[in-house]
Amino acid sequence: MKRITIYDVAKEADVSLATVSRVINGSEVVREDTRVKVQEAIEKLGYKPNAIAQGLALQKTTTIALIVPEASFFYTGQIINGLIDVAKIYKYNIVLHTATEGIIEMNDIIETIIKSRVDGVVIFNDKLSKNELNTLTRYQVPIVVIGNKMSDDTIGSVYVDYSKLVYDFTTKYLNKGITDIALVEDRKNPAMIKQLFDGISRAFADAGKSFDNYIEIPKDYRSSYLFLQEYFKSHKHELVITYRDSQAMAVLNTAAENNIRIPEDMEVVCILDSKYNAMARPQISGFKIPDYDLGAVAMRVMTKMLHDEDEVIDKEIELSYIYSPRKSTK
Amino acid sequence: MKRITIYDVAKEADVSLATVSRVINGSEVVREDTRVKVQEAIEKLGYKPNAIAQGLALQKTTTIALIVPEASFFYTGQIINGLIDVAKIYKYNIVLHTATEGIIEMNDIIETIIKSRVDGVVIFNDKLSKNELNTLTRYQVPIVVIGNKMSDDTIGSVYVDYSKLVYDFTTKYLNKGITDIALVEDRKNPAMIKQLFDGISRAFADAGKSFDNYIEIPKDYRSSYLFLQEYFKSHKHELVITYRDSQAMAVLNTAAENNIRIPEDMEVVCILDSKYNAMARPQISGFKIPDYDLGAVAMRVMTKMLHDEDEVIDKEIELSYIYSPRKSTK
Repeated sequence: MKRITIYDVAKEADVSLATVSRVINGSEVVREDTRVKVQEAIEKLGYKPNAIAQGLALQKTTTIALIVPEASFFYTGQIINGLIDVAKIYKYNIVLHTATEGIIEMNDIIETIIKSRVDGVVIFNDKLSKNELNTLTRYQVPIVVIGNKMSDDTIGSVYVDYSKLVYDFTTKYLNKGITDIALVEDRKNPAMIKQLFDGISRAFADAGKSFDNYIEIPKDYRSSYLFLQEYFKSHKHELVITYRDSQAMAVLNTAAENNIRIPEDMEVVCILDSKYNAMARPQISGFKIPDYDLGAVAMRVMTKMLHDEDEVIDKEIELSYIYSPRKSTK
Repeated sequence: MKRITIYDVAKEADVSLATVSRVINGSEVVREDTRVKVQEAIEKLGYKPNAIAQGLALQKTTTIALIVPEASFFYTGQIINGLIDVAKIYKYNIVLHTATEGIIEMNDIIETIIKSRVDGVVIFNDKLSKNELNTLTRYQVPIVVIGNKMSDDTIGSVYVDYSKLVYDFTTKYLNKGITDIALVEDRKNPAMIKQLFDGISRAFADAGKSFDNYIEIPKDYRSSYLFLQEYFKSHKHELVITYRDSQAMAVLNTAAENNIRIPEDMEVVCILDSKYNAMARPQISGFKIPDYDLGAVAMRVMTKMLHDEDEVIDKEIELSYIYSPRKSTK
C-alpha cells in the first residue's frame, strides 16, 4: 500500500500543502470551513501526520541546509516560511546559509555544508552555476533547487515556468496589436531575467517579429530611479514589464513625473507580485507566485528523496501562478 | 592583554560591525575608501579574524538557534543577514526556527531547541513572554534577545529604545503646539506598540496633557484599509504615527481618497522605515532602524557569552536610529 502523504491530503482537500501544514500545526489563521475540509480529507485517507513524523524522528537528527540569497526580498521570506513549516512536521532542522555575491563565497558555503555533514541541501539562488552544483552532487548529498528547472535527474527542482508566463502574457498583447513592449532589468537576477527574455523573444518570434526593447537599469533603486527619470523624457512604451515591485514603482513614479499616464499612455506589469503592488497608486498588476508553496513543496521533495518513499519520485515539480490585473493595465 | 575583537575594529574605523564583517568576508558591496579604512584599523589593532575563527572552530561545532516570527517583514530579513554574517566569521551554524502565533507552538519550539542541544539561542520575537524565557534559562542555555530590553542579567539583549524615540519625536511636535497626534496600531506587535504608547503617553504627560488618540485597526491590510477609508471620512489629525510601512501607506491612500492633503492637512510618520517609504507618493518620513546591526551585534554578544572573552561582558546593548524626514511631514 502506498503511504499516504501530506501531498495526498492537499490534493484530496483541494487546498495547498501550506494549508494542510497549518491545519496540522493547529494554526489559527486557517478559515473554519477550510480546516473542516482538510480534517475530512485526513480522516478519509487515514493520514497520520504524527506517526510518520515520529517514525522519522527515531532514525537520526536530520539536518537540511538551506541556502538563500542575502537580499531580503519578501519573496525569500515566504519561501523560508513554507520550507520550515514542512520541516517542522517531519522533525527536520534547517541550518540557514546566506549567499551574497561571488563564486568564492559560494564555494565556502558549499565546503561548510559538506563538512557539517548535513543530510540534504535546498538551494534558492539565482546565481548558482552548474559547476557549483557539481561540487555538491560529487559528495552525493541530496539536492533540491528552488526556482530553476534542473535538467539533472539526481537533483530535485520546484519552480514556476516564468518563460511560459511571459510568453503567454506577451502573446496576448501582440494579438491585440500591441507591439511596443519593453522589459526592465537590473542584472540582479540573471537566470530569472534570462527566462523572461526567452519568453518574450519567443512570443515575438512566433508573431514574426523580433524583440529588442531591453531596458538595462542600474542595480540600486536610487540610481535606477534617476536613470528612468531621464529615460522617460524621450521614451514611452505601450507595455513595460518589470521583474520586482520596486522596479515597477520606479517606472510608475518616473512616468508620472514625465506626464505619462498609467495605464492610458503606458501599461505596467510586475512579474513578482507583492503586497506593495496593491498599495501603489495606481495599483500595479502582477502575477501571484506561490512563494510559500515553493518552499513547502521543495522540503517535501527533499523528505521523499531522503526516504525513498515512493518507487518513482517526481523530482521536477512545476507550480502555477495567478494573474492579478489591477489599475496599471487596461 | 585584552583580545582585539571585530567590535574594536568597527570602533576604530568608525564603521558598523556589519561593514567590518563584509570587508573580512571580501564582499564587493563595500566602498573602496571604507574598505581601506577598515583594513587600516585591522592592521593598527593587530586584529586576526582568521586566527580567532579557527581557534573557536577547533573547540566544537557550535550551533546557535535563531527564532524569528514567521511573517516576512523586510526588517526580519535584514536581522537574519546581520546575524549570519557574524556567525560565518566565528564559524557558527545557525538553525532557524519560525514562530507563528500562540504559546503552544512556542513551547514546542523551545522543546525542540533544548533537545537538539544547541549552544545558544537568539530570539527575535515580539510575543515572547517572560514564562517562556524562564523555560530556556532553566536549561542554562545562553540567550540573546533582539528588540526588547531584558531586565535580567543572565540574558543578553540588543535593542533600539523605541519608547525614547517616540517620546522625543512627540515632544518636538508638542513644543510646536501640535497636540492632535494619533497612533495607529494593529495588535500584531504588542510589545512594540506598548513601547510606542508609553513614549507618546510620557511626552503628553510631561507637557501636562493626556494622550488618547489610539486608532486600533484590523490586522490585515485589506480590512485595515477599509477601516481607515471610513475613519478619515470623519477624522483628521495633525500627525499620525504608524509602526510599519504598510500602515503608513494605508493612511496615505485613504487620506487621499478623503481629500486630506499630506502633509498640509495631516502629517504622517512611520517608525520602522523601509525602502518602500521612499517609493510612496508623497514619500513617507521614517526612522532608519539599524536592522542588520541588531542581528550582527546580537550574534557578537552571543559569541562573547559563550567564550567569556572579557571579564565583564556588556550584555545590554542599545543601538541608535536616524530620522529620515521626507515629504509626508512638514
